[in-house]
Amino acid sequence: MSEALRVLQQRLAAFAAARDWDQFHSPKNLAMALSVEVAEIVEELQWLTEGESQALDAERRERVRLELADVFIYLLRLADRLDVDLLRAADDKIAQNERKYPVERVRGDARKYTEY
Amino acid sequence: MSEALRVLQQRLAAFAAARDWDQFHSPKNLAMALSVEVAEIVEELQWLTEGESQALDAERRERVRLELADVFIYLLRLADRLDVDLLRAADDKIAQNERKYPVERVRGDARKYTEY
Amino acid sequence: MSEALRVLQQRLAAFAAARDWDQFHSPKNLAMALSVEVAEIVEELQWLTEGESQALDAERRERVRLELADVFIYLLRLADRLDVDLLRAADDKIAQNERKYPVERVRGDARKYTEY
Amino acid sequence: MSEALRVLQQRLAAFAAARDWDQFHSPKNLAMALSVEVAEIVEELQWLTEGESQALDAERRERVRLELADVFIYLLRLADRLDVDLLRAADDKIAQNERKYPVERVRGDARKYTEY
Repeated sequence: MSEALRVLQQRLAAFAAARDWDQFHSPKNLAMALSVEVAEIVEELQWLTEGESQALDAERRERVRLELADVFIYLLRLADRLDVDLLRAADDKIAQNERKYPVERVRGDARKYTEY
Repeated sequence: MSEALRVLQQRLAAFAAARDWDQFHSPKNLAMALSVEVAEIVEELQWLTEGESQALDAERRERVRLELADVFIYLLRLADRLDVDLLRAADDKIAQNERKYPVERVRGDARKYTEY
Repeated sequence: MSEALRVLQQRLAAFAAARDWDQFHSPKNLAMALSVEVAEIVEELQWLTEGESQALDAERRERVRLELADVFIYLLRLADRLDVDLLRAADDKIAQNERKYPVERVRGDARKYTEY
Repeated sequence: MSEALRVLQQRLAAFAAARDWDQFHSPKNLAMALSVEVAEIVEELQWLTEGESQALDAERRERVRLELADVFIYLLRLADRLDVDLLRAADDKIAQNERKYPVERVRGDARKYTEY
């Protein structure tokens, strides 16, 4: 885990502990909270075209920026409670994806691996 | 942004570019993909008690670990497409939360800020 | 509640009772399951353009049809556990929406009520 | 499709048409909206225990009731756009589930079919 992420996870753990919120932070509940935060991003983009979603006005962009932060915060918290190293997990997953989606086979095609 | 996250975002950008997948990676589509990956975590935990979700067996824990990686990957990718610095956004959001949820006021109480 | 929906809810209740699954069907867990089923629809549509999502091929359309059924099933089950009459609730909500989004004010504009 | 559901779908179609909102109601966008409405239910229940989620206070219950209505409304709308008969789809899905989860095999066990 990078130093920056570890420090952030410790801040979040201290934030929860100071408020006696660990009792609410079961992985089950944190997964629910994570899904709610993602939905707040989806809500900002749902009626936009794909092109519009790439060119947000300043106000919406700032809202989305802070909702991305919320997702990041709950993801770090959930990973912490499950003792998962997110950077190592991402490395492992990217290695898997490189085997599952070889460049020459999937170029320009977003179908799922299982559809091949 | 930490060096580790920047490097990871560059790997993900290269992965998508090599497969000509940038055309699919609008923020709108990436937000949908992010919500789907979070749902895969929720699916693992939905019938467990909170206590069971804190004590996963090895097989389920490994599946959840890789699903956390998927969420992290799409979150980094979406932040990259929107040019958002996740660490800075998390700092800003934690500062907001410290003002909204002062320790002395919310200790042991998970009600939303808006309910106070 | 319409007769057809009541009969369907009774079938679903009997299905769960016969399998001793009521113990898993708390509203909290059913809400999680509902979100997972919706994500399966989102997964089918996430990389499609809006136009493509309106013109699904037969195979994908059949998968989406059965995923819509899953959402309907969990929605009916959750409403049953909370003793909510879905048809009456929809009537009440549509009446609210008619007041919140008067035709002359919102024509062709999908911004949320709160943005006006 | 039951008469009650057909009537409700026609009211929703008229509501959208009067506001010139059909342009926003692609299946892709409606699936996003459906996921956002489900997240509003999840948000109400995320910090509650399973027992508490079965015994909501009157205020929260009323909020959840109207959020169930929102899910129902978007589900009907999406089914309408895809020309799916929800009652028939539910019948087909329940028949599938009866084959996949025979009573004698799954009694009291919520593991997924694929785990057997």
